[in-house]
Amino acid sequence: HRQIGIIGTGNYARALAKRFVLSGFNVMIGSRRPLQRQLSAIDECLCDIELTSVADCIKKTNLLILAIHAENYKDTLSPHIGELSGKIVIDVSNREVPARRQSNAEYLSTLVPDAHIVKAFNVISAYIMETDFAGGSRRVFIAGDNEEARGTVCRIARDMGFNPSDLGVLTSSRKIENFVLNLFPGWKVPLFLTFGIFNLWCLYIVYIYFVAKTAYRWDQIFVKVLNKPLCMTGITILATTFLPGNIAGILQLYNGTKHKRFPKWIDNWLKVRKQLGIISFVLIFSHVIFSILVMSPTYYRSWFQSTIIQIPSNHTSDLQFPMTSWMIWKGEAACLVGFLAFLILCFLALTSIPGVGETLNWREWQFVQSKLGYSALVLSVAHAMIMGIPGWIKKGPIKTLGSITFLSIQLPLLVIILRLVLCLPCISKHLKRIRRGWE
Amino acid sequence: HRQIGIIGTGNYARALAKRFVLSGFNVMIGSRRPLQRQLSAIDECLCDIELTSVADCIKKTNLLILAIHAENYKDTLSPHIGELSGKIVIDVSNREVPARRQSNAEYLSTLVPDAHIVKAFNVISAYIMETDFAGGSRRVFIAGDNEEARGTVCRIARDMGFNPSDLGVLTSSRKIENFVLNLFPGWKVPLFLTFGIFNLWCLYIVYIYFVAKTAYRWDQIFVKVLNKPLCMTGITILATTFLPGNIAGILQLYNGTKHKRFPKWIDNWLKVRKQLGIISFVLIFSHVIFSILVMSPTYYRSWFQSTIIQIPSNHTSDLQFPMTSWMIWKGEAACLVGFLAFLILCFLALTSIPGVGETLNWREWQFVQSKLGYSALVLSVAHAMIMGIPGWIKKGPIKTLGSITFLSIQLPLLVIILRLVLCLPCISKHLKRIRRGWE
Amino acid sequence: HRQIGIIGTGNYARALAKRFVLSGFNVMIGSRRPLQRQLSAIDECLCDIELTSVADCIKKTNLLILAIHAENYKDTLSPHIGELSGKIVIDVSNREVPARRQSNAEYLSTLVPDAHIVKAFNVISAYIMETDFAGGSRRVFIAGDNEEARGTVCRIARDMGFNPSDLGVLTSSRKIENFVLNLFPGWKVPLFLTFGIFNLWCLYIVYIYFVAKTAYRWDQIFVKVLNKPLCMTGITILATTFLPGNIAGILQLYNGTKHKRFPKWIDNWLKVRKQLGIISFVLIFSHVIFSILVMSPTYYRSWFQSTIIQIPSNHTSDLQFPMTSWMIWKGEAACLVGFLAFLILCFLALTSIPGVGETLNWREWQFVQSKLGYSALVLSVAHAMIMGIPGWIKKGPIKTLGSITFLSIQLPLLVIILRLVLCLPCISKHLKRIRRGWE
Ligand SMILES: Cc1cc2nc3c(=O)[nH]c(=O)nc-3n(C[C@H](O)[C@H](O)[C@H](O)COP(=O)(O)OP(=O)(O)OC[C@H]3O[C@@H](n4cnc5c(N)ncnc54)[C@H](O)[C@@H]3O)c2cc1C
Ligand SMILES: Cc1cc2nc3c(=O)[nH]c(=O)nc-3n(C[C@H](O)[C@H](O)[C@H](O)COP(=O)(O)OP(=O)(O)OC[C@H]3O[C@@H](n4cnc5c(N)ncnc54)[C@H](O)[C@@H]3O)c2cc1C
Ligand SMILES: Cc1cc2nc3c(=O)[nH]c(=O)nc-3n(C[C@H](O)[C@H](O)[C@H](O)COP(=O)(O)OP(=O)(O)OC[C@H]3O[C@@H](n4cnc5c(N)ncnc54)[C@H](O)[C@@H]3O)c2cc1C
Ligand SMILES: NC(=O)c1ccc[n+]([C@@H]2O[C@H](COP(=O)([O-])OP(=O)(O)OC[C@H]3O[C@@H](n4cnc5c(N)ncnc54)[C@H](OP(=O)(O)O)[C@@H]3O)[C@@H](O)[C@H]2O)c1
Ligand SMILES: NC(=O)c1ccc[n+]([C@@H]2O[C@H](COP(=O)([O-])OP(=O)(O)OC[C@H]3O[C@@H](n4cnc5c(N)ncnc54)[C@H](OP(=O)(O)O)[C@@H]3O)[C@@H](O)[C@H]2O)c1
Ligand SMILES: NC(=O)c1ccc[n+]([C@@H]2O[C@H](COP(=O)([O-])OP(=O)(O)OC[C@H]3O[C@@H](n4cnc5c(N)ncnc54)[C@H](OP(=O)(O)O)[C@@H]3O)[C@@H](O)[C@H]2O)c1
Ligand SMILES: CCCCCCCCCCCCCCCC(=O)OC[C@H](COP(=O)(O)O)OC(=O)CCCCCCCCCCCCCCC
Ligand SMILES: CCCCCCCCCCCCCCCC(=O)OC[C@H](COP(=O)(O)O)OC(=O)CCCCCCCCCCCCCCC
Ligand SMILES: CCCCCCCCCCCCCCCC(=O)OC[C@H](COP(=O)(O)O)OC(=O)CCCCCCCCCCCCCCC
Ligand code: HEM
Ligand code: HEM
Ligand code: HEM
Repeated sequence: HRQIGIIGTGNYARALAKRFVLSGFNVMIGSRRPLQRQLSAIDECLCDIELTSVADCIKKTNLLILAIHAENYKDTLSPHIGELSGKIVIDVSNREVPARRQSNAEYLSTLVPDAHIVKAFNVISAYIMETDFAGGSRRVFIAGDNEEARGTVCRIARDMGFNPSDLGVLTSSRKIENFVLNLFPGWKVPLFLTFGIFNLWCLYIVYIYFVAKTAYRWDQIFVKVLNKPLCMTGITILATTFLPGNIAGILQLYNGTKHKRFPKWIDNWLKVRKQLGIISFVLIFSHVIFSILVMSPTYYRSWFQSTIIQIPSNHTSDLQFPMTSWMIWKGEAACLVGFLAFLILCFLALTSIPGVGETLNWREWQFVQSKLGYSALVLSVAHAMIMGIPGWIKKGPIKTLGSITFLSIQLPLLVIILRLVLCLPCISKHLKRIRRGWE
Repeated sequence: HRQIGIIGTGNYARALAKRFVLSGFNVMIGSRRPLQRQLSAIDECLCDIELTSVADCIKKTNLLILAIHAENYKDTLSPHIGELSGKIVIDVSNREVPARRQSNAEYLSTLVPDAHIVKAFNVISAYIMETDFAGGSRRVFIAGDNEEARGTVCRIARDMGFNPSDLGVLTSSRKIENFVLNLFPGWKVPLFLTFGIFNLWCLYIVYIYFVAKTAYRWDQIFVKVLNKPLCMTGITILATTFLPGNIAGILQLYNGTKHKRFPKWIDNWLKVRKQLGIISFVLIFSHVIFSILVMSPTYYRSWFQSTIIQIPSNHTSDLQFPMTSWMIWKGEAACLVGFLAFLILCFLALTSIPGVGETLNWREWQFVQSKLGYSALVLSVAHAMIMGIPGWIKKGPIKTLGSITFLSIQLPLLVIILRLVLCLPCISKHLKRIRRGWE
Repeated sequence: HRQIGIIGTGNYARALAKRFVLSGFNVMIGSRRPLQRQLSAIDECLCDIELTSVADCIKKTNLLILAIHAENYKDTLSPHIGELSGKIVIDVSNREVPARRQSNAEYLSTLVPDAHIVKAFNVISAYIMETDFAGGSRRVFIAGDNEEARGTVCRIARDMGFNPSDLGVLTSSRKIENFVLNLFPGWKVPLFLTFGIFNLWCLYIVYIYFVAKTAYRWDQIFVKVLNKPLCMTGITILATTFLPGNIAGILQLYNGTKHKRFPKWIDNWLKVRKQLGIISFVLIFSHVIFSILVMSPTYYRSWFQSTIIQIPSNHTSDLQFPMTSWMIWKGEAACLVGFLAFLILCFLALTSIPGVGETLNWREWQFVQSKLGYSALVLSVAHAMIMGIPGWIKKGPIKTLGSITFLSIQLPLLVIILRLVLCLPCISKHLKRIRRGWE
């Protein structure tokens, strides 16, 4: 299989040819107009390559790469269908819009049903194909119905220095073609949601701190004030990460079976928990840094011993004021509990890194994500309550209802209570039976 | 191999069946009571599946999955042993207690010696099998004595969307069955040890700071005081990470050969160095954050210029006191050296992440873990000494012996000295010869 | 293939033998002096092994491992060339100096052209081979011209508990042999460059702050002063990360084709962008921690409200001074913008971790590395300008030219402007056409 034929003389065809030549393959290129294309003029690497007609190229090679656009497949191949039977044909094409019913590769396999169609290389751009040091992944996804053909393409990809990843039957080519079109597809909705919640909290905070009463100066908007919507959005998103799991449990209890599909919205919500979790981590990380930046008696007066310099109107001896002020229990406890919550969230984030998560079995994964995750949520609520409660007692119940600390922990508290309820022995036994299968 | 038989109609059998159907396989299920089990009532996905007797299922398929518990293997299979010869039988069972002598799969291979037994899929829970978006690893470990059978199962797993990982001969099934039962097995002892050492340092600190003399208020227990046992446990655990390597070297020198087994305890100690290292990193990370949180003239008076407001009893002109106070060399040097130690430890932690460590060759790994590791230890000791020495000079030798800074660096110093001794040219040459092989 | 022959009785031969025996293989060792070598005396694991002459070992086994040094290949093998034909011969040797023309394995294949030479195991040290818990990668690279032989060795490596990685044809053995000799090869030049730039900035800062005027005390050299060259080197290196991409674009525009090779220096510069980026990240991380450590009115007076205690010479009533001072807009804005830049750089660093980068397609990779990367650069410049501009207005243009804030943002600004120019519709269209291929 060291003899390879490429159809097309475009950008990608030439990048492929160059790479193949450098990896020690024999390459033949088939073009509609072989005489007009002077490849050797472009790149000295392409000198040894035989440039011939499409028909000739198809006849002479057993392994063909179609480096032309999918819309030209029919025109280009229809005269040569018989010739292609039993040969390996690699489809490298990409699409403008996601494949729904039929991928390019499946379309190709309907055109030449007797060839062994393999989808490969489309995830590698022409630039990365040519340039060794260009950054980015070198994984090549491979799909095809013929196992042996897939194996051959795997080996070729490996010999070219790529990292092949066999995805099985040709239907997977849909996934492969869509892969290239994605730009963080799962992240859009969670990011919008975050943005919305963040804005709501911002509005409320501007209202109570700048409009209803002037607690802060506009000067302090960038760090001191921004820190508040940041941590509140963080805790809210953290709660929304763990909420859908509970709703799912309640629905299963209500349905009495796990075999009824969840409503669409809850299904989607369950699917974006990873993204919500990571976004909440980023927000909380920001909150921690912002808090550390401004942590001083100046900003958090109530957390510190107060030192007031008091000079009596008449004093006969010299006065001396050592200027010290340290945190009282409230501040220290809030810091400790907040830090523990953050540390635990770091572990959750760490196991979200693909390579690390892979090394855990599902008991360990469940332990980190579910047990430790809820611990972090509980600690976060405790962190806010330590700060809030002394104030609530002073303010009385009516004012407390509007205080941001109080508001921000309502959703997290709800999540924790729901979880506790679902963990009650009687309910959890019932739920377990439902999830086990035979109702 | 697109025809698959599943024995059992339990939870896992149905999850498997559903997944196989969605991945385009033909599934046949064999049950003890095929007439009583109405699979189509549970899940519409299971409608197309042929439900038949166990005997029939075994006869009609060449690839069987046993989705029943291992204790029922004998009863279920004994009537059909002859029928199974030459077929691939996949064992998916899990255990309650770790396998010592014989895994379920090995037991199965003694029952049906002529079948090709393959261990697979047991690491995937029924929930993850059914649900695409559930978090957690999708790696499937595979073991079996017949290479071809293993290959077939690999391909099936890949076609189902899992990530197969071939572990070789059937004996590896022990490892695979135990994998599921683990909950961070290597971490328990190091965590207990850490907990013990942490408590000892806490007791000592409470004694000297609250009992022997009242240096701090109970108010400050959560951050300011907690920071001390934290950093001391951190440096102690860091030292215990590097200590066993030196003890091993000394033992090899003493034995004059590397072919004598180390005592059990030192062997075990060497095995948990990774965990000790990471725990010490987490503790030190906490120490750094705590230190940053409270870094101010209020807390670290001796690190800062002192500003005292002195008001004479009678002053005729206006007085003006600009309030500034910056760190003196001791504070700045301690911060710098501590930060460098922390930064280096970050590199060590980074290379502990599976994906990153894999890209290093062993010379690089040794460089990061051993050379950089010792540098971090040396810098940590320097960090503590910069803080301590001015105090020790003032206090005199007797009081110094009880000071926590002094105590906390004893073990690290010992480790460094041992290392230096083992690096002396004469000794290191001898040691190298011993490690080379021929005595 | 469970019968394996090893030639040599040295350190590595014995480590291999031990591992093979523990993994359930039959091992036979061939030595020049089988009678003098008493392997069983060294290690009880080696008791069952047949120790015989080299000739005998070669005759009796089909899979041979040469655990001798490459310079002895000729002497050892020349009498047995015929015997070896068709057998798999594994070359495990390492080199002292990098292979240029011919690797050891290629040399071996010229010696015994009829054998199937496979390069393997050389990346595993004897220590890791013997010891299960030793840290470090367990990846085994495999190369060889015969595909089946490569497959066999892969399976053997897997059965021994290693993680085989097939690199294709035997020419890859050069890469494999050089892999072991590397010590962060790509990092040396960037680290030197960093060191140089860091020193230049240090000199300039010492000059203007200690020589030209005494702005700081020597006391403050370790954190407060060091922070300045740190952040300046950071932003300079960040700019040099993105500069070569622009220069490459300009050269392509100038040449009118992408098929002319870049000059050597620009090629090399493009290749070390990853390293430059990560180094700048580390420097900026240090800058952030240092800044947080000293963030207080004491150090950054101009960022804070000033509080001066003013005591009139005669006061009839008691005086009271609440000591508070918070950041003004300049400080808060600089912190916010700096933090955002840092957060974005964290994402870039995160995707540089091998496992994470692999999960992104090149559109996503480009988005994170290029779009987000430039955003970080722009934010960094904004961060410095927020701090600098009020001062520049006060100082006037002449003094501004020498100010470090002004100097430090020149290169980053240049990079941003170049990029903007290359993005102008007219130019970018032309550039796109050039990069597309057919001129
Ligand atoms: C913290 C941090 C981490 C980093 N980690 C990495 C890393 O892991 N790997 C890495 O590579 N870099 C890394 N970098 C460096 C940097 O982010 C990348 O190199 C980045 O892609 C450069 O962006 P760019 O837009 O200048 O380059 P590119 O988009 O690559 O363009 C650079 C030049 O390449 C040429 N070019 C680009 N596309 C094409 C094309 N299709 N055809 C022909 N020529 C083309 C053009 O001449 C262009 O001007 C890191 C940087 C930082 C700060
Ligand atoms: C920093 C951070 C990072 C995160 N990273 C990730 C990530 O990488 N990947 C990820 O997926 N999530 C991630 N998350 C989100 C979150 O941690 C997980 O989704 C977590 O597992 C949810 O815990 P849970 O106990 O609610 O869910 P689960 O234990 O999954 O349970 C949720 C619901 O699923 C159903 N269910 C659970 N088990 C079964 C069963 N055996 N049979 C039938 N139904 C069942 C039940 O209805 C249950 O109520 C992250 C969160 C954070 C904060
Ligand atoms: C943050 C952090 C993370 C860490 N992560 C890890 C990790 O992921 N994995 C890990 O393993 N450790 C990890 N560690 C622990 C530690 O860094 C390593 O174990 C380190 O290699 C120990 O260095 P050493 O020089 O003492 O050990 P080594 O160089 O391994 O030597 C230790 C002893 O082993 C024996 N030995 C060494 N080489 C040979 C040889 N060629 N032949 C015979 N005997 C030999 C000798 O007896 C020697 O004294 C981590 C530590 C920290 C602080
Ligand atoms: N460029 C990339 O970065 C990249 C990356 C991954 C995948 N791909 C895929 O690779 C394929 C080729 O991409 P490309 O960028 O190389 O495209 P291109 O530059 O436009 O080249 C297309 C080639 O197809 C041939 N062709 C045959 N019939 C044709 C027709 N009727 N009309 C026009 N051309 C015809 C032409 O060669 P002759 O005139 O010599 O016959 C032409 O050179 C596409 O399917 C694309 O999705 C490209
Ligand atoms: N559930 C999981 O998450 C999971 C994960 C990994 C591995 N596994 C493994 O998969 C296997 C099946 O687990 P499961 O959870 O599906 O168990 P289950 O729900 O209890 O089902 C067991 C099935 O075995 C059949 N069976 C045959 N002989 C039996 C007997 N004498 N007594 C009882 N049942 C008998 C029954 O089917 P018929 O009555 O129709 O014959 C029954 O449905 C186990 O080995 C388990 O370790 C399960
Ligand atoms: N040690 C490692 O950590 C390591 C790691 C990776 C790769 N390797 C490679 O493994 C190979 C062996 O390394 P090693 O450390 O085991 O070397 P070693 O300890 O010096 O052993 C070399 C063996 O080669 C045999 N031999 C055959 N002809 C010889 C001759 N003319 N002169 C000397 N010895 C001859 C000897 O066995 P008899 O006297 O019994 O014939 C001797 O025991 C080398 O190619 C090395 O690069 C070693
Ligand atoms: C003691 C520990 C100390 C150190 C802590 C370790 C921290 C480790 C961090 C790990 C983070 C995990 C990331 C895993 C990524 C991953 O899965 O990697 C894979 C993913 C691919 O995800 P999909 O599989 O969903 O496509 O890649 C990414 O997601 C890339 C990152 C994009 C992030 C975009 C989110 C932006 C959020 C912005 C929020 C708004 C901020 C507003 C401020 C005002
Ligand atoms: C410039 C750099 C800036 C950023 C720094 C990067 C930091 C990166 C951090 C990497 C951390 C490495 C982790 C690698 C994990 C791994 O190997 O991943 C694999 C391991 C599996 O380990 P095994 O192979 O041992 O089974 O997974 C884990 O260990 C998961 C994490 C569990 C951690 C439990 C430890 C808890 C410790 C608690 C201490 C007590 C605290 C008390 C406080 C009061
Ligand atoms: C919200 C997010 C919060 C947390 C942020 C996450 C941070 C994650 C950090 C990731 C860092 C990426 C590293 C990737 C490594 C990699 O690619 O891993 C692979 C590389 C191999 O690189 P090659 O492929 O180039 O050989 O391994 C390494 O590079 C190991 C690290 C060596 C680093 C040496 C550099 C030292 C720099 C010293 C600078 C001088 C300082 C001076 C101070 C005075
Ligand atoms: C080291 C860790 C942490 C520190 C030092 C810290 C510090 C602070 C500070 C100083 C405040 C007061 C903000 C203000 O009023 O302006 C605060 C509030 C808050 N923090 Fe944290 N925090 C930490 C971790 C966390 C974590 C992990 C969460 C989890 C979500 C969290 C959630 C909150 C919430 C919701 C508030 C709002 C309470 C209120 O404003 O009344 N914090 N934190
Ligand atoms: C940015 C990095 C660091 C900073 C800012 C820092 C700061 C401090 C501070 C402020 C103290 C005094 C604590 C107290 O007396 O209450 C301290 C003590 C100590 N630190 Fe660090 N540290 C850093 C890194 C490290 C590292 C990496 C280690 C390694 C183990 C370490 C080990 C210690 C030890 C052992 C002490 C105890 C000394 C004593 O209390 O006398 N520190 N550090
Ligand atoms: C949380 C994030 C950050 C904080 C709190 C921060 C803080 C500071 C502070 C306090 C200074 C003044 C230093 C001095 O004059 O002694 C400074 C200067 C500087 N920072 Fe940052 N910074 C951050 C992020 C960044 C980032 C990401 C960059 C990117 C390169 C950066 C680049 C610079 C530069 C170039 C200066 C020099 C300006 C001058 O000295 O006039 N900073 N930063």
